Amino acid sequence: MMRIDGLQYCNWSPEIFQQMAEGQVDCVHVTIAYHENFREMVAVIESWNRFFENFSDRLVQAFTADDVREAKANGKTAIIFGFQNPSPIEDDIGLVEIVHRLGVRFMQLSYNNQSLLATGCYEVTDPGITRMGREVIREMNRVGLVIDMSHSGERSTLEAIEISERPIAITHANPAFWHPAKRNKSREVLEALGNSAGMFGFSMYPHHLRDGSACSLESFCQMIADTAELVGIEHIGLGSDLCQSQPDSVVEWMRSGRWTKAVDFGEGSTEQPGFPEQPEWFIDNRYFGHIEQGLWDQGFESAEIRQIMGENWLRFFDESFGMQKAM
Amino acid sequence: MMRIDGLQYCNWSPEIFQQMAEGQVDCVHVTIAYHENFREMVAVIESWNRFFENFSDRLVQAFTADDVREAKANGKTAIIFGFQNPSPIEDDIGLVEIVHRLGVRFMQLSYNNQSLLATGCYEVTDPGITRMGREVIREMNRVGLVIDMSHSGERSTLEAIEISERPIAITHANPAFWHPAKRNKSREVLEALGNSAGMFGFSMYPHHLRDGSACSLESFCQMIADTAELVGIEHIGLGSDLCQSQPDSVVEWMRSGRWTKAVDFGEGSTEQPGFPEQPEWFIDNRYFGHIEQGLWDQGFESAEIRQIMGENWLRFFDESFGMQKAM
Repeated sequence: MMRIDGLQYCNWSPEIFQQMAEGQVDCVHVTIAYHENFREMVAVIESWNRFFENFSDRLVQAFTADDVREAKANGKTAIIFGFQNPSPIEDDIGLVEIVHRLGVRFMQLSYNNQSLLATGCYEVTDPGITRMGREVIREMNRVGLVIDMSHSGERSTLEAIEISERPIAITHANPAFWHPAKRNKSREVLEALGNSAGMFGFSMYPHHLRDGSACSLESFCQMIADTAELVGIEHIGLGSDLCQSQPDSVVEWMRSGRWTKAVDFGEGSTEQPGFPEQPEWFIDNRYFGHIEQGLWDQGFESAEIRQIMGENWLRFFDESFGMQKAM
Repeated sequence: MMRIDGLQYCNWSPEIFQQMAEGQVDCVHVTIAYHENFREMVAVIESWNRFFENFSDRLVQAFTADDVREAKANGKTAIIFGFQNPSPIEDDIGLVEIVHRLGVRFMQLSYNNQSLLATGCYEVTDPGITRMGREVIREMNRVGLVIDMSHSGERSTLEAIEISERPIAITHANPAFWHPAKRNKSREVLEALGNSAGMFGFSMYPHHLRDGSACSLESFCQMIADTAELVGIEHIGLGSDLCQSQPDSVVEWMRSGRWTKAVDFGEGSTEQPGFPEQPEWFIDNRYFGHIEQGLWDQGFESAEIRQIMGENWLRFFDESFGMQKAM
């Protein structure tokens, strides 16, 4: 069983790498930038390079789907880099190819707020993909950097699906029909994503779950079954959004970056300003087996469970990470 | 005949790329930084990426020796990146692996002046490789970034050869016994380089030539024969230092960077402040055949000429650009 997680942002440590090994997690797309500029993001890659050097028996960076297959064969976890915000490319389209060379394979066009490229899901008005956004989408298509619209607004997301010549991803979110959070996606987005052969990763971040931390595994798996009917069984996977062991200062950086002097609560609130508790059926990387059991109990066939747990992501990696073929 | 040039810094243009094709030049190590910091150097790579995209029928970036072989098979010129100064890694050893990932394969530890790593050839006193220099040499050895001491001082160069666990290069210089310029190398350096399986590239930059721009091809080829006896025929190649079509403002940047407000003439003088004229037997990339003819007339055998023109560099690339094998 190939196990691929479409997004995590943990406070990385030997303990977490050990849990990945125990959980037989073959690949994780990890966030390496929220609001960092290019040089700050490079410093984060440097930290990962030190992990790859010091934990070479456990971890390996993946640039291609075949790297993920090789990692699995060697009993390692493959790490794929991604940005939740386009801040690391600054205002410079040439950095798209540079970050791809460095191994970045996913980039969100906006994170909650308006960016140079697209609108975030918390803005009042979403005017759609910007002039630079259209140029950057073309360049991302060319080099094989996947467009991720997890934190973007409705119109920007629909336009990104339309403009992009290659399938895009929503790496970590859930459908709004199940839990109407601003970050969760409309039926229209889900259908457009599936029809364009895009990928949707299901989040286990409590703010995206019905009943939050108290969400039941049954409800989560029923939601996956309902979403599969809209998006298509071959276009769904996991994107846990696991933020294990992070101090609350990190969620403050994620939400407020350097764009406000005030506190922005994002998906939280004054009553719940920090990271929420994980649901008991998904605490850390050792819990992927619970999801598999939940999908089985929901009535999915074993081939479908393999698709959801990793095979769909792997096929998407095969199709997405290389240079664009001539049309 | 594999033709590899161990260093050029031209004012790159379609005309020069055309001349490379006409001259059947299979590979050029090009300088992408003199005094640039990391972010500025990345902008230079971005410019090269645009060349690779727009002249994909002529040029291709090489990361490995096999990329050079493939370029030759496809009738293209392979471009390998290098720094003449360690300024792009700033004070951050983690940037060594980052720039290697971006394709940088040569880095000089110092350029004329003292750097954070080593001493340049124009300093009065050379105290040898610095503390950071020793760390960076180990890291360059680990990832496969070649140490280049072309512009470094005598003691720093000898120490670099000694400290480095992998062979180093002097990509572009000539022996001081032939022409006693500060940049040219002593017998001791040449012998130590050859004994350590390092590579020496012969410069055709007039300030490095006996009689400058008026140097004869016969004298140049006699010098190669004399140097081969010291360094070994398998450890020599070309490193033309061709700076074609550059305005004099560029040689000012090379010499003065941001380290002085005054004019530094470097290898020039008040009488000759700009770029000197090339010798008539090596004007541009179409002239490599002249060198081959000169070597033939000097009495080299054809196998030796193939070594000097490219095969030695190619073997060195094979041995140098990959991760260090476990000792």
